[in-house]
Amino acid sequence: MLTLAYLIAITAEAMTGALAAGRRNMDLFGVSLIAFLTALGGGTVRDILLGNFPVNWTQHPEYIYLTVGAGLSTMLVVKLVHKLQQLFLVLDAIGLVAFTLIGCNVGQQLGYSPVVVVMAGIITGIFGGILRDLLCNRRPEVLHRELYASVSLLVALLYLQLQQWQLDGDIVLLASFSVGLLLRMSALRWHWRLPTFSYAPERWQDAAHGDQK
Amino acid sequence: MLTLAYLIAITAEAMTGALAAGRRNMDLFGVSLIAFLTALGGGTVRDILLGNFPVNWTQHPEYIYLTVGAGLSTMLVVKLVHKLQQLFLVLDAIGLVAFTLIGCNVGQQLGYSPVVVVMAGIITGIFGGILRDLLCNRRPEVLHRELYASVSLLVALLYLQLQQWQLDGDIVLLASFSVGLLLRMSALRWHWRLPTFSYAPERWQDAAHGDQK
Amino acid sequence: MLTLAYLIAITAEAMTGALAAGRRNMDLFGVSLIAFLTALGGGTVRDILLGNFPVNWTQHPEYIYLTVGAGLSTMLVVKLVHKLQQLFLVLDAIGLVAFTLIGCNVGQQLGYSPVVVVMAGIITGIFGGILRDLLCNRRPEVLHRELYASVSLLVALLYLQLQQWQLDGDIVLLASFSVGLLLRMSALRWHWRLPTFSYAPERWQDAAHGDQK
Repeated sequence: MLTLAYLIAITAEAMTGALAAGRRNMDLFGVSLIAFLTALGGGTVRDILLGNFPVNWTQHPEYIYLTVGAGLSTMLVVKLVHKLQQLFLVLDAIGLVAFTLIGCNVGQQLGYSPVVVVMAGIITGIFGGILRDLLCNRRPEVLHRELYASVSLLVALLYLQLQQWQLDGDIVLLASFSVGLLLRMSALRWHWRLPTFSYAPERWQDAAHGDQK
Repeated sequence: MLTLAYLIAITAEAMTGALAAGRRNMDLFGVSLIAFLTALGGGTVRDILLGNFPVNWTQHPEYIYLTVGAGLSTMLVVKLVHKLQQLFLVLDAIGLVAFTLIGCNVGQQLGYSPVVVVMAGIITGIFGGILRDLLCNRRPEVLHRELYASVSLLVALLYLQLQQWQLDGDIVLLASFSVGLLLRMSALRWHWRLPTFSYAPERWQDAAHGDQK
Repeated sequence: MLTLAYLIAITAEAMTGALAAGRRNMDLFGVSLIAFLTALGGGTVRDILLGNFPVNWTQHPEYIYLTVGAGLSTMLVVKLVHKLQQLFLVLDAIGLVAFTLIGCNVGQQLGYSPVVVVMAGIITGIFGGILRDLLCNRRPEVLHRELYASVSLLVALLYLQLQQWQLDGDIVLLASFSVGLLLRMSALRWHWRLPTFSYAPERWQDAAHGDQK
């Protein structure tokens, strides 16, 4: 089940990457690269941080073809993709949760401590989107919109907690997956957000350059 | 031959990095860092992704001196560099092709599959420029101008294909090199570009925030 | 002493990261992530470049709690932080010097050559701030303001030079630390800067696109 969710996830993420590249008028190559990075960048950053070589996708050429193909296809079916926005939000939510659970798994198999396992899950979940936004020269969207990274955090915590209760592995996965998906969809539906922190020193007196450093 | 091309390449790339830093009014240190990253960043990203430690330049202090020196010298001879733009485009093209072939070689020596070898070549070829543009806070130029990354892709594919035909190693190198150089120069001369993908949802109706995620 | 300086440093850096995130109206999660990256990003980049796995913070969960906690606390005491700007500049300078010395140490223990050891020190000292500025979508401040990265360079060079003179380890550390701190504070006090390099081709004639590449 997780593998299927993963394949759906990297396809959907590659397509959101292609759309972001299209907003910047990138060429075919740029679209392919951003699609690839959005889909597989989170897992790559995780593997490098955890010293987990060889990096996952280098052993699975089919993931490269799938994500680049999905990115390029997006250009052909962009009107359809635009109409199916709601569907894409669901696919993207599936991706977020699947990536998080896979990242936790990798961290556990490498024997890292629980807090690092949680971070491995979050990094897998959100860094593809962060790399996409960096290369498209925009502020990372995952850090100031409807609950996204926080869903990843909660899914990872829930997953570790359920494991502690010695439940069956499949049940733990299914429960974490469902709760995460539900949470993300609710956040989108009712615009749940985390409080934001706004610091605008110039509104106090002079924007002394010290705090700009 | 490839080593000579490599030394020319990192020097030329360091100088383009210094110019980009100059456009952002960076200080001496910023110029040195951007020059270094532009020249050696692609190989560094490749080595990290392929788990190829120690990273190449850590074993070759002379590359550090060469690239930082080239970056700082650019400040002294900037008017000359500006006049020799055409020459720099040739040196940069040499760099692109040499980096790509070296990247493919490294990937092959580590035993990766062909598609990963091709990606190792492309990453070595273009990531220096991408890192330069990220640190200078501009959209990566290699992804939406005259054929650049695509030249890297074609050189890598050609190189692997020629190897399959059991030709002599030097001939394979020379042929891939020449074709790549010719292709890049032609692309510059006649402004060959890949089609670009432009996605501007606001031109359809409301820019529903869903696809901004 | 270096450990205490390190703990002060990562706390102070996390707080500057939180302030930068606040300027971009990030949410709680964004603030935590930027705080973490600013404090521990430099050491992470160093460990990855030097192939020093497992990455330091994955073995010290307490650093994760400390930096995320410091970031979130900043939101509560932001007015106090704003008032104590001068104090923060001192803490930040302590961080810069402590990070640099620690980075040099790691490089030496891994047996790298002196120039790579110096670079390991600089990377540890400045890359946290560079990652913070990248994610906050602004030009890296460490590369064009009062002496900052250059202080890191000088501290690293001094440290290696003093070691060569066979002085006692504690004396070497203390001397490098004091000189670095003094230098940074003087640079801030008297606005010492490195010369900057400004390259604006459009002021000469046409901004031929060649040099934009």
